[in-house]
Amino acid sequence: PPGRKVLIVYAHQEPKSLNGSLKRVAVEELSKQGCSVTVSDLYAMQFEPRATRNDIVGCLHNSEEFNYGVETWEAYKRGGLSSDLIEEQKKVQEADLLIFQFPLYWFSMPAIMKGWMDRVLVQGFAHEFPNCYDSGLLKNKLALFSFTTGGSREMYAKEGISGDIRYLLWPMQHGIMHFCGVKVLAPHICFAPEYVSEEKRKEMLTAWAQRLKTLWKEEPINCSPEWYFK
Amino acid sequence: PPGRKVLIVYAHQEPKSLNGSLKRVAVEELSKQGCSVTVSDLYAMQFEPRATRNDIVGCLHNSEEFNYGVETWEAYKRGGLSSDLIEEQKKVQEADLLIFQFPLYWFSMPAIMKGWMDRVLVQGFAHEFPNCYDSGLLKNKLALFSFTTGGSREMYAKEGISGDIRYLLWPMQHGIMHFCGVKVLAPHICFAPEYVSEEKRKEMLTAWAQRLKTLWKEEPINCSPEWYFK
Repeated sequence: PPGRKVLIVYAHQEPKSLNGSLKRVAVEELSKQGCSVTVSDLYAMQFEPRATRNDIVGCLHNSEEFNYGVETWEAYKRGGLSSDLIEEQKKVQEADLLIFQFPLYWFSMPAIMKGWMDRVLVQGFAHEFPNCYDSGLLKNKLALFSFTTGGSREMYAKEGISGDIRYLLWPMQHGIMHFCGVKVLAPHICFAPEYVSEEKRKEMLTAWAQRLKTLWKEEPINCSPEWYFK
Repeated sequence: PPGRKVLIVYAHQEPKSLNGSLKRVAVEELSKQGCSVTVSDLYAMQFEPRATRNDIVGCLHNSEEFNYGVETWEAYKRGGLSSDLIEEQKKVQEADLLIFQFPLYWFSMPAIMKGWMDRVLVQGFAHEFPNCYDSGLLKNKLALFSFTTGGSREMYAKEGISGDIRYLLWPMQHGIMHFCGVKVLAPHICFAPEYVSEEKRKEMLTAWAQRLKTLWKEEPINCSPEWYFK
């Protein structure tokens, strides 16, 4: 709906890829609805995935023994995080919905996107004990993981060789998003696009556009062990 | 035992951290046993986590549309991967045991280590369909995930707020190591070292050294859904 803000965190090297097309479809469809859409194109930004001392501007809280969690927490409080992190946090803060668009790498997100999670969602900004899970600091936001796989739907069936696809969603949806208080919409999964026809890939794009039309009416999943491991 | 080769892939910024000490204890104990131990100290190496075109030396197989999986597979076959990857693959090839030592970041490994998985374990080297899972190309090797957590053992209990710690091991142990044919030893987990006494942390180091003394007699876990989600 008009006025809603969406941040798409996107991790693919190739604009012509299906992931690139899925990202474009989302920008188009959501913009058409009157949403304001921002994209963090991680490879194009050459986003830094490594959590290092460079993320803190100025002096360290404890320069004797570097503790990334403590240092970024302290830096956040005094406005001393590096500018790329402040920029991403601003985008997250403003967003009603976060869409993560990526190809599945090793049952998870590509390292460049994991680095976005490691570095952007610092203590003080996204969580601060006891404000985690349902009382996480990013509550009232939604997240949606949209990704492509190498393996087929059959391989990711419950009795398939790779196990239920939901098993691998636990760390991303529960461990990261739910931990920060973000409610999670059902994932959007395109299975094995490299092994289907061009026509099938077009159908995948249409299905995504179609889903986005009624996205704001969706209820979040019940992000508890039952949803994943029933 | 004398002659066994171990590769420790280590991801912590601070040598004085518990992770740093756990790594040192492993180097010492395994060397004492006569093993030859190599360490990939990812932060010290400023290891590149991003999967990009830079990983391929020379021309691309398809320069019209960049596909990382296809390009690294082709590059592997003609010896055209970047030198940092060839170097890591050599270490993996020679190793009987891979130890991954890291602090848990967001229910998973830090991005710098995820980048090691994404970039080093390329098709052709670590797997090549149908050679995956029990017939993965790295069979006859062992892996062990050794990590520290922020959350306590209680939080990572089956009924705890973060769910059974085994849930989050699925992508790493099954999705990566088992997929490549590597057999997995039980993980070594130090819960919440930042919230315990110095004495307790010393006990954690002693326990690790102790375990390593009989490590070669251990049986791998049964890496199937039952072990994780029973």
